[in-house]
Amino acid sequence: MTRTGLWLIGARGSVATTAISGLLALRAGLAPPTGCVTFRPEFADVALPGWEDFVVGGHDVVSTPLAKTAEHLAQAGVLPPHLLGLIASGLCEIDAEIRDGYHPVTHQGDQAEAARRIAADITAFRDRHNLARVVVVNVASTEPPAPFDPSHGELTALEAVLTEPGRAVLPPSSLAAYAALRAGCPFVDFTPSTGIALPALDQLARELGLPYAGRDGKTGETLLRTVLAPMFTARALRVRSWAGTNLLGGGDGATLRDPQHAESKLESKARGLAALLDHDVVAPLHIDNVPDLGEQKTAWDHVSFEGFLGARMTLQFTWTGLDSSLAAPLVLDLARLVAAAHADGQAGPLGSLAVFFKDPLGSDEHRFAEQTRELYRWAGELRG
Amino acid sequence: MTRTGLWLIGARGSVATTAISGLLALRAGLAPPTGCVTFRPEFADVALPGWEDFVVGGHDVVSTPLAKTAEHLAQAGVLPPHLLGLIASGLCEIDAEIRDGYHPVTHQGDQAEAARRIAADITAFRDRHNLARVVVVNVASTEPPAPFDPSHGELTALEAVLTEPGRAVLPPSSLAAYAALRAGCPFVDFTPSTGIALPALDQLARELGLPYAGRDGKTGETLLRTVLAPMFTARALRVRSWAGTNLLGGGDGATLRDPQHAESKLESKARGLAALLDHDVVAPLHIDNVPDLGEQKTAWDHVSFEGFLGARMTLQFTWTGLDSSLAAPLVLDLARLVAAAHADGQAGPLGSLAVFFKDPLGSDEHRFAEQTRELYRWAGELRG
Amino acid sequence: MTRTGLWLIGARGSVATTAISGLLALRAGLAPPTGCVTFRPEFADVALPGWEDFVVGGHDVVSTPLAKTAEHLAQAGVLPPHLLGLIASGLCEIDAEIRDGYHPVTHQGDQAEAARRIAADITAFRDRHNLARVVVVNVASTEPPAPFDPSHGELTALEAVLTEPGRAVLPPSSLAAYAALRAGCPFVDFTPSTGIALPALDQLARELGLPYAGRDGKTGETLLRTVLAPMFTARALRVRSWAGTNLLGGGDGATLRDPQHAESKLESKARGLAALLDHDVVAPLHIDNVPDLGEQKTAWDHVSFEGFLGARMTLQFTWTGLDSSLAAPLVLDLARLVAAAHADGQAGPLGSLAVFFKDPLGSDEHRFAEQTRELYRWAGELRG
Amino acid sequence: MTRTGLWLIGARGSVATTAISGLLALRAGLAPPTGCVTFRPEFADVALPGWEDFVVGGHDVVSTPLAKTAEHLAQAGVLPPHLLGLIASGLCEIDAEIRDGYHPVTHQGDQAEAARRIAADITAFRDRHNLARVVVVNVASTEPPAPFDPSHGELTALEAVLTEPGRAVLPPSSLAAYAALRAGCPFVDFTPSTGIALPALDQLARELGLPYAGRDGKTGETLLRTVLAPMFTARALRVRSWAGTNLLGGGDGATLRDPQHAESKLESKARGLAALLDHDVVAPLHIDNVPDLGEQKTAWDHVSFEGFLGARMTLQFTWTGLDSSLAAPLVLDLARLVAAAHADGQAGPLGSLAVFFKDPLGSDEHRFAEQTRELYRWAGELRG
Ligand SMILES: NC(=O)c1ccc[n+]([C@@H]2O[C@H](COP(=O)([O-])OP(=O)(O)OC[C@H]3O[C@@H](n4cnc5c(N)ncnc54)[C@H](O)[C@@H]3O)[C@@H](O)[C@H]2O)c1
Ligand SMILES: NC(=O)c1ccc[n+]([C@@H]2O[C@H](COP(=O)([O-])OP(=O)(O)OC[C@H]3O[C@@H](n4cnc5c(N)ncnc54)[C@H](O)[C@@H]3O)[C@@H](O)[C@H]2O)c1
Ligand SMILES: NC(=O)c1ccc[n+]([C@@H]2O[C@H](COP(=O)([O-])OP(=O)(O)OC[C@H]3O[C@@H](n4cnc5c(N)ncnc54)[C@H](O)[C@@H]3O)[C@@H](O)[C@H]2O)c1
Ligand SMILES: NC(=O)c1ccc[n+]([C@@H]2O[C@H](COP(=O)([O-])OP(=O)(O)OC[C@H]3O[C@@H](n4cnc5c(N)ncnc54)[C@H](O)[C@@H]3O)[C@@H](O)[C@H]2O)c1
Ligand code: NA
Ligand code: NA
Repeated sequence: MTRTGLWLIGARGSVATTAISGLLALRAGLAPPTGCVTFRPEFADVALPGWEDFVVGGHDVVSTPLAKTAEHLAQAGVLPPHLLGLIASGLCEIDAEIRDGYHPVTHQGDQAEAARRIAADITAFRDRHNLARVVVVNVASTEPPAPFDPSHGELTALEAVLTEPGRAVLPPSSLAAYAALRAGCPFVDFTPSTGIALPALDQLARELGLPYAGRDGKTGETLLRTVLAPMFTARALRVRSWAGTNLLGGGDGATLRDPQHAESKLESKARGLAALLDHDVVAPLHIDNVPDLGEQKTAWDHVSFEGFLGARMTLQFTWTGLDSSLAAPLVLDLARLVAAAHADGQAGPLGSLAVFFKDPLGSDEHRFAEQTRELYRWAGELRG
Repeated sequence: MTRTGLWLIGARGSVATTAISGLLALRAGLAPPTGCVTFRPEFADVALPGWEDFVVGGHDVVSTPLAKTAEHLAQAGVLPPHLLGLIASGLCEIDAEIRDGYHPVTHQGDQAEAARRIAADITAFRDRHNLARVVVVNVASTEPPAPFDPSHGELTALEAVLTEPGRAVLPPSSLAAYAALRAGCPFVDFTPSTGIALPALDQLARELGLPYAGRDGKTGETLLRTVLAPMFTARALRVRSWAGTNLLGGGDGATLRDPQHAESKLESKARGLAALLDHDVVAPLHIDNVPDLGEQKTAWDHVSFEGFLGARMTLQFTWTGLDSSLAAPLVLDLARLVAAAHADGQAGPLGSLAVFFKDPLGSDEHRFAEQTRELYRWAGELRG
Repeated sequence: MTRTGLWLIGARGSVATTAISGLLALRAGLAPPTGCVTFRPEFADVALPGWEDFVVGGHDVVSTPLAKTAEHLAQAGVLPPHLLGLIASGLCEIDAEIRDGYHPVTHQGDQAEAARRIAADITAFRDRHNLARVVVVNVASTEPPAPFDPSHGELTALEAVLTEPGRAVLPPSSLAAYAALRAGCPFVDFTPSTGIALPALDQLARELGLPYAGRDGKTGETLLRTVLAPMFTARALRVRSWAGTNLLGGGDGATLRDPQHAESKLESKARGLAALLDHDVVAPLHIDNVPDLGEQKTAWDHVSFEGFLGARMTLQFTWTGLDSSLAAPLVLDLARLVAAAHADGQAGPLGSLAVFFKDPLGSDEHRFAEQTRELYRWAGELRG
Repeated sequence: MTRTGLWLIGARGSVATTAISGLLALRAGLAPPTGCVTFRPEFADVALPGWEDFVVGGHDVVSTPLAKTAEHLAQAGVLPPHLLGLIASGLCEIDAEIRDGYHPVTHQGDQAEAARRIAADITAFRDRHNLARVVVVNVASTEPPAPFDPSHGELTALEAVLTEPGRAVLPPSSLAAYAALRAGCPFVDFTPSTGIALPALDQLARELGLPYAGRDGKTGETLLRTVLAPMFTARALRVRSWAGTNLLGGGDGATLRDPQHAESKLESKARGLAALLDHDVVAPLHIDNVPDLGEQKTAWDHVSFEGFLGARMTLQFTWTGLDSSLAAPLVLDLARLVAAAHADGQAGPLGSLAVFFKDPLGSDEHRFAEQTRELYRWAGELRG
């Protein structure tokens, strides 16, 4: 395949740095593609960009060098320590491709202007590296849910408001999505932030013939829920309550400590569970910031269910995952798949990629196994 | 549908008594069909016998009245206590349909004779109640693995040995299967015992045009394993070890205390895990008899897996189930489905029923979601 | 010993009904004293009232008969179903000894008057049954933390405010404590409500020479924490975070659903953990109302700690308890012990009973083993 | 205090290497003494050797350099990677003090001769470094239980048999203990092997006025059991079953894979539980070798217990520990304490050190809190 850009919003964060480090390691043959779905045999015949085809850049609002974040990730068990030396120059090169992101507080001027600048960074990157296309992936910090605005519903209205000085009608994630589309790029929303999930942006993507996918990478507790809930349903067992607690440190833990930010995440998780069971359940859910866990996330779920003749039973699980290790290969998978969809001329939400997301856009299917089948089916049709 | 017999080998055990009590309760509208797969919407149009169509009988080697076992099950949380009074007369009636089973120790005479007697009990039951067919389901105590005998491989050879006095070439479960087939009945193996899983018996079933299904009902730890293992595979995560411990009381716990008996069960569980993951894993597995748990089974599994760049993560779960509550509705489901397969003229192993079993006969598919899909597909074709 | 009264505030609740049912069962020799600390060998020579010495009465604001609550508790696994018939007449008798409690919303008149009425109910009970003493135990619903009032600090000031019409300076639990003391009765605070924990009430108890004990029965997660935390300390292991989630149904679950009510409980739990470890830890804690769990409480705790050379390790536990089954025998123990302390002429907070409480009054000791030793020591000195 | 030797049997193993690395780190002020009991405030006034007072040597049957084992331990999360460089020369120096241990298979000649050689290595070390005393600590691989021999009962008989060529009446651990005593050294048994726990060796220790302590370091599941079991007892709750599963990799996991070797360990664990509860419980226990866990040990325990009126409840815990990180500081503690006991003129088993061991010699006390108190009391009396 021709050369492909991967542009990361939040390029200096844990997920981004892990994805970048992994890409460098995989390209150099230093690690097997464990965790990369698109290296499963089901994709053997699908025309997807290879590791060597990718060029990486991005936006961020901090300037910590990638090597420093990588060092921190090595201490946290995400990256193997011996890798650091081997990828140091690669990280440096990519550092040079990271630009200042849009910051809602420090930004001067109207949002249209901001979007133009963001889009220009991306097109310059595409031109500079002579790329066939650039997939923009949002892996920036989770935002609080954005307040509704009528202009979100229609593109002309939205673009009018964007030019009003002093108005910030779009949250940063949606501004990034808007700019990506305006730069002619497919967009992936790996976070629970509003991002591209506004009617006006969907309209723009369709008008421009651009595919997009989202949202909120499905990597831990929700992954398990979408695997386990269908079992209860298929066995005609009646789930009575499904309680969950998530302990996490890291950047995401710090962000979600703020209940306002956590809200997006909790909402996105709750939507999934409700969709999976045929009926309502009591489902208290907590996200706690526990800094000493570092990059590790521990989730405990307690499911109480009823069987034959009302018999009462329970299932509990404890998941101890390294969130960035789970997310990063999916980011790379999504870059490959969405690039292929773009090459294939697809536009609008890629519901067939639902298996990657907690809150899939363009799909109502939350069951993991059904989503997996749909992914394979869709990929099969890409085969040249 | 016409009247259908359900003949239980091990009719006085926990699973059988729960199935019988539930059938009476469901028929009387005293409980919803929670746990019964065949009442899912996917089966709405499938022609299956209804609760009122069933007549129940069986074999056992003990004579404890069903009402007494039911009382014990109520104390153990399996049956709701208030139900006992309401189904007392129904249990009494079925008590009258239970005959003495084949007991390898006390039986006098050759095994051919024993099989004729067992078959005669079943045909008499069919005639007495004017039944269109009788589904024979083995829910007797787990046996130790049967020693191999060359006659197991071919029917004529087997039938020759059966007439040799003093030889007991078939374990009780296989004798029951043989007798059931000879009585013209479809057979279901809900236990891990040898049962119908001998080439000679498969040959007989095909010759007589009889369907059968098995084996070892999938109700707890293995159910979860066949749900969770495909997730790791689909996400390209590498499982390194999968350790399990099962604590159980009840009749099954007492039987499995004997390591020889436990062997069948452990083997049947191990086969599944190996088939689900692409590669070998360290998978120590224990079954412990813990009498104070009564009918409750608690399973703890610890899965250690590797993700992107070798990151180490774990999943643990604890399942606390009432085994008979999980098994009984499946026994009723199997009676309905296998009766329909028989009415449909199917013969040999029903691989499409793999979702019900730890060690599915006639199928290599262990993944729960794929098995569920296959069940729905198959049932869809039964639709008149 | 002479006849002793047990007066329960919240006499129709789960804890009270379990304690009453158990007392009747124990007195009739229908059950062993499992869960009763004072039947341990260490108390063999301590002069404590026996089961036959107790007469029970109380206050409540609802009128559900004890038999009905007992029936509910039997369904929930707290009381053995066969017991209900055997204690029915005993429950009826005690029903007749329960009076209308003080209700802050419906009460007319000033609080001094309310206290007089409450006290009169208790003294009438004492006289009617010719009791040597009455131990008043608060097992009413948890209240929200009471707003501070300067009059709480000194008895004369408090009593002046009590007579002001329209003022409700004391929360119901403290009004009950005040009335109990004014009736000359020792008081036990089994709940996290304010109760007797006000300087003015402590002053009154000392002036009247009355002992009291509290507060918040230690029955589940906190019990384990006060057992486990000293292990980390004694082994010089550094706890980094201690997260907890409590799932509970029942009356207490419904009350604590209200975050304001839960606050008392959370505060009382947090004080304990801080006292047990030498340093601050991140300790998120949740209480969720999960009605389908009924009387069962499930607590999950996750402890992250550091060992030699900074090695990172974890401990998790899941406790599945029946709260009323754990609390009721302790209520009976406390009635016996506080009666003995009163007979012995002790006054003020009984710090030696700290082992019974999450937030012990009159003691700074939270370590379970040390508290147990202190209880034995103190009881040893009671020996006549 | 004067200079003290620490002589490790199994000096190249995980526990030994962690203890040695830690000692070097602590001496250099590179780490705080987390996990070292003797740095608790309770020992502030006790005269114990300091880190700088220790000189280390030992025996092993392999020749892997300490630095190599340390590297492996760093990868496994036991040692902080940055430490390796800082202690490299220290490890080298100690390497030079490690001698070939007694190997039962390769040894030529009678056991008396072997013992003399082992003892000579130790006395040469003491003389070479001009040490006041040498504490010998056994941290070698667990042995299978030794077959009983009548000569184990009495010293003269034993020493007679030791001189018989071709007889190996003592397992290596006991031979090491014998040699240590004959070299005039106090002995600590950190393993479940037979070691010093033979009447003839106890007799020798007393005759020579040497103290000893053992056996089997209490670091994980058993530690928790001796903390939790007393809670059930003190609360008069009746434990019905206590099931356990241990998953471990590392050298110890490989050794214990062999059921014969595991037997010592299982026996030593079972003795503790029986002693802690007043009555027998069903207590199945497993040790599984799961190599991918590396140095990590995961233990799952499931406790089923009965409360008031027969209510059924459970506690489960999962402990995820790094065994060597837990063991190593205790080895250093024991070296300090046993050196002090020797200086104090104590002889025979030091029952006051029971808190360190699963199977304490010279003590029947298994309760952690009581053992801790006894340790503090005993240490208090050492104060000069
Ligand atoms: N790791 C997972 O398993 C997982 C799963 C689903 C979703 N996510 C989401 O992925 C996102 C990233 O997670 P993370 O752990 O890498 O977080 P992180 O805090 O380590 O990284 C976020 C990065 O975004 C940057 N950023 C913030 N605002 C920005 C802006 N306006 N423009 C550009 N960059 C900006 C931050 O400076 C930071 O470098 C989060 O939203 C998280 O919820 C992660
Ligand atoms: N409960 C589950 O979830 C589950 C799941 C899979 C398989 N199973 C299997 O189902 C079977 C029944 O389990 P259970 O809990 O009811 O056990 P149980 O011990 O309560 O009942 C077994 C019954 O079989 C009878 N029996 C023994 N030998 C017989 C013979 N030769 N002929 C006729 N009857 C005989 C016994 O007398 C007893 O009444 C077991 O083999 C078990 O392994 C159960
Ligand atoms: N069960 C335990 O393990 C445990 C442990 C510690 C503390 N507690 C505390 O014990 C208390 C009782 O718990 P429960 O489960 O029995 O709750 P519950 O809701 O079943 O019972 C509380 C009773 O108090 C009554 N009540 C409410 N306000 C009253 C008033 N002003 N005067 C008199 N009665 C009043 C209610 O009507 C109800 O009958 C709670 O405060 C709980 O927090 C229980
Ligand atoms: N780590 C813990 O928490 C813990 C707790 C209690 C007991 N223990 C015991 O401590 C011992 C050491 O554990 P480890 O993890 O270090 O094991 P390991 O296998 O890493 O080390 C054992 C060492 O002993 C050496 N050895 C074997 N036979 C010997 C002999 N005859 N003479 C001298 N050396 C010999 C081996 O070569 C190896 O270097 C084991 O017996 C274990 O059961 C450990
Ligand atoms: Na959707
Ligand atoms: Na206090």
